[in-house]
Amino acid sequence: MTSIKATNITWHEGHVAREERAKLLGQKGCTIWFTGLSASGKSTFAFTLEHALVQRGHLAYVLDGDNIRHGLNKNLGFTAADREENIRRVGEVAKLFADAGLVTMASFISPYRKDRDNVRKLHMEGNAPFIEVHVNTPIAVCEERDPKGLYKKARAGQVKNFTGIDDPYEPPLAPELSLDATALSPQEGVARLLNYLEGQGLIRSIFAGNPVSAVAA
Amino acid sequence: MTSIKATNITWHEGHVAREERAKLLGQKGCTIWFTGLSASGKSTFAFTLEHALVQRGHLAYVLDGDNIRHGLNKNLGFTAADREENIRRVGEVAKLFADAGLVTMASFISPYRKDRDNVRKLHMEGNAPFIEVHVNTPIAVCEERDPKGLYKKARAGQVKNFTGIDDPYEPPLAPELSLDATALSPQEGVARLLNYLEGQGLIRSIFAGNPVSAVAA
Repeated sequence: MTSIKATNITWHEGHVAREERAKLLGQKGCTIWFTGLSASGKSTFAFTLEHALVQRGHLAYVLDGDNIRHGLNKNLGFTAADREENIRRVGEVAKLFADAGLVTMASFISPYRKDRDNVRKLHMEGNAPFIEVHVNTPIAVCEERDPKGLYKKARAGQVKNFTGIDDPYEPPLAPELSLDATALSPQEGVARLLNYLEGQGLIRSIFAGNPVSAVAA
Repeated sequence: MTSIKATNITWHEGHVAREERAKLLGQKGCTIWFTGLSASGKSTFAFTLEHALVQRGHLAYVLDGDNIRHGLNKNLGFTAADREENIRRVGEVAKLFADAGLVTMASFISPYRKDRDNVRKLHMEGNAPFIEVHVNTPIAVCEERDPKGLYKKARAGQVKNFTGIDDPYEPPLAPELSLDATALSPQEGVARLLNYLEGQGLIRSIFAGNPVSAVAA
């Protein structure tokens, strides 16, 4: 980074350092990647965590099908290549968000291990923490819930290549966390996520009464 | 948004409201789009503004060729279609950043009026403020600067479709701001940007001693 001093503004050619962002926000930018079957509870966990974090004074944001598939990725379909590109782009955007200092949640079925591992690799290359959360609610429960009637359509052959029915779901081999919506209440799931983030020093501890800058050390 | 109450965590299905983010950050998410010739000073203005904002306690982030072309858009080239898709994707990402509450700077030559207007439209549809900044440093000065030797290569025919040489630059018809790096010192340019953001109520005023929540009203 080169810089030219002016009277009271320093001329910069590169980003504010990540440590400065962490100090400003009292948190470290990171990506929490929720993967799991349709109707497993991914987005509900992610959005509830977003609210819980903001309530605690943290900046958090969810990337999900609604804000990505209708925007950035509206020119992608559901072929194998397009699914891969979908996850690649989301991974890149999550990395930018994490770099900007946000606790970033991505909520996508993301059924293929290779695609998720590529996103992890991308984050590791950029020194951005990546937390893979497997929402492993049993498929029978997901199919029973079926809020959008998609399992029904897949069973009837009206929807093709549906994950868990006629397209594979490859579970993570070593996720940082696993959450089963039948075994954990909402409260317990999000408490577990908050606890994990605190333990990693990514957010302020509510117990220690830490100053804002404590996580930035 | 539906929500299910638990003991101390409320179950959510949608984003934290933008007003809540504004209150948390003491700023309103928005996109500042820098357009202009190669070597006109776009990125220097953008990065200096990023530093100046963070110094004032605001969260800001620059999207530029370095973090976009090597990541999200690394599968795009420089054909007309790819240039259009490049700007479309950046526009969508900027909109997500603005929605998350950040003062977002995008620094791209973005030579075509139609592409920039599409990004503006996208922001208007999402009620996110869009500020187009034309960095209108004269081409003779840009070519004289030529830090990467690109103008030289374009003049020698070694680089094709170079904006301003053998590809058009369509200046904005009604930019929110115009900055000419030969007429304004770095200090003056960034001061003008800060002044504009203050005037629009997007960041805290340094004069009024406003409380953090004042811009969120």
